[in-house]
Amino acid sequence: MNDTFLKACRGERTDYTPVWMMRQAGRYMPEYQQIRGQIGFLELCKNPGLCVEVTMQPIELLGMDAAILFSDILILMEAMGMPLEFHEGRGPIFHRTVRDQAAVESLRQPQAREDLGFVMETIALLRRRLEVPLIGFAGAPFTCATYLIEGGSSKVFWETKKLMYRHPEVFHGLMEKLTTATIDYLQAQAEAGAQALQLFDSWVGILAPDDFTEFALPYVQRIVAALKPHGLPFIYFANNGATLIELSVATGADVIGLDWRLPIGDAIKRVGPRAVQGNLDPFALLLPEERLRQRIARLLEEARPAHGHIFNLGHGIHQHTPPEQVRLAVRLVHELSRR
Amino acid sequence: MNDTFLKACRGERTDYTPVWMMRQAGRYMPEYQQIRGQIGFLELCKNPGLCVEVTMQPIELLGMDAAILFSDILILMEAMGMPLEFHEGRGPIFHRTVRDQAAVESLRQPQAREDLGFVMETIALLRRRLEVPLIGFAGAPFTCATYLIEGGSSKVFWETKKLMYRHPEVFHGLMEKLTTATIDYLQAQAEAGAQALQLFDSWVGILAPDDFTEFALPYVQRIVAALKPHGLPFIYFANNGATLIELSVATGADVIGLDWRLPIGDAIKRVGPRAVQGNLDPFALLLPEERLRQRIARLLEEARPAHGHIFNLGHGIHQHTPPEQVRLAVRLVHELSRR
Repeated sequence: MNDTFLKACRGERTDYTPVWMMRQAGRYMPEYQQIRGQIGFLELCKNPGLCVEVTMQPIELLGMDAAILFSDILILMEAMGMPLEFHEGRGPIFHRTVRDQAAVESLRQPQAREDLGFVMETIALLRRRLEVPLIGFAGAPFTCATYLIEGGSSKVFWETKKLMYRHPEVFHGLMEKLTTATIDYLQAQAEAGAQALQLFDSWVGILAPDDFTEFALPYVQRIVAALKPHGLPFIYFANNGATLIELSVATGADVIGLDWRLPIGDAIKRVGPRAVQGNLDPFALLLPEERLRQRIARLLEEARPAHGHIFNLGHGIHQHTPPEQVRLAVRLVHELSRR
Repeated sequence: MNDTFLKACRGERTDYTPVWMMRQAGRYMPEYQQIRGQIGFLELCKNPGLCVEVTMQPIELLGMDAAILFSDILILMEAMGMPLEFHEGRGPIFHRTVRDQAAVESLRQPQAREDLGFVMETIALLRRRLEVPLIGFAGAPFTCATYLIEGGSSKVFWETKKLMYRHPEVFHGLMEKLTTATIDYLQAQAEAGAQALQLFDSWVGILAPDDFTEFALPYVQRIVAALKPHGLPFIYFANNGATLIELSVATGADVIGLDWRLPIGDAIKRVGPRAVQGNLDPFALLLPEERLRQRIARLLEEARPAHGHIFNLGHGIHQHTPPEQVRLAVRLVHELSRR
């Protein structure tokens, strides 16, 4: 068992810097594309056997030090009674939106162990095969709320902020329901065998710090606190969150995920004594070998003062990234960080 | 003549905090929609008489303390030989892209005084009518480059970074040409009568600070330096630039534009002795009056230590914003800041 990732999360000394990458199982891999050629995205998420295959691919083929459950943050909302479709190109679409009190009330509270049993089964199967730690995950309530309010992805999140500013009580009601569902979902993942948990706050970077404090932080804090008794490292990733670092620390998470806009050395000073995860620009994987080596070496050097560093990208791997460049980056991180 | 805006740019004491808003002339105003009902967007940009009308609307109807030339940053690139269309909903589309050396070489260097004479005529006409200062503007080279490389707007800017990382010499060649054209264009605007200049770096927030330093900063510095002899306040706005503040100062600009993600008090400490412009969340214009008043009051209070503060939004006005809320915000800024 390679537990380098877990040690780094806990701030313990490791022989080298562990690496995994957000969206490491996905469209950039021909082996993934082959499976997706036979099955739709949502169906794949609900097929434990194939989820295991897809989760294993980047571990076996690219040498990652941690696996992340193959799934999607929107699965939980589907289980809350919000039918969902994935369009190639257009992204996820909810057939309805949640923009008033009645819509909030009509959301059901799923029982993750039953309604999302396929996720728990995937986790159990993975634990039998994996020789690296398995990360479970969920979307953070604010990010989940944006999908429900907008009815899918958005460029500017007009409807989300309109609800937040005009009807804060409805917005908070939605956040309550999402928080309760997320706690149950992550507790079920922990019981099923997840060895670390990550909360993805993909869109929270649209909030100024004061709004984050009022509309998002209390819910993340409750989730982190509710999972504490399980004793798993908890990673919080506020995408585009350069102005939210201190507040990310205030969530109580053990590991702070960083996007690529933040110089990691500055971020480490602001984070204080806890681990960080990040933060290579995902598109820097396009650099020629020598320049990629320099960039990774500099990042590792700047990350030295961290109380634990997990190498990752500052965002998910882009679908057109050549897999051999991903493999190269993993090799470089291992090679350059070995002590 | 109301010169409060110009005084604030220079860090001089003013009787109240001047206010203007990015995209203050635009689709949220019925008076603008009425004109646009009769003429396409690009045609409007090339019609000095109507550009004057549209530029004046928010001054006369909403009480702004500065006018900004009605135009679009892409006009310059059209004059460089890149045909352009604006689609409702899909945004601007270039018929060709610039992704290799041949495409860079085929870009022509426009003579702004002739090729963009309609802009200079608009400026001259506006100066005769306006009783507030007139701001001229251009897109910053990096932002302009993204449009040419992607062929329009983009969500992730894959092609831009691919060119930057794989063929930096081609990327720098494109930046050179854009910089030369932008200097000529802004000098022409200054000679025509613009009283301040703003450089919009709308997409530069996708760059980590090291990449900004290598791929964007030197070009902005050259533009600022070339305009210095004209003696106009120069505003640089790096959208989503929370990690680029010190580098924004390094451009040499007199005024640093701030987006809404940055607490203005923190930004002022980092900016040092120069003016700042910003930074209310544009969607906060949806707040009920009392909460909007509190938020503006807090912003003005936090901005007190600034060496000059121009109130603005942290991004452009959204098209669905009620104009009466914009008028209310202008009134509140004037009322709450009066000394």
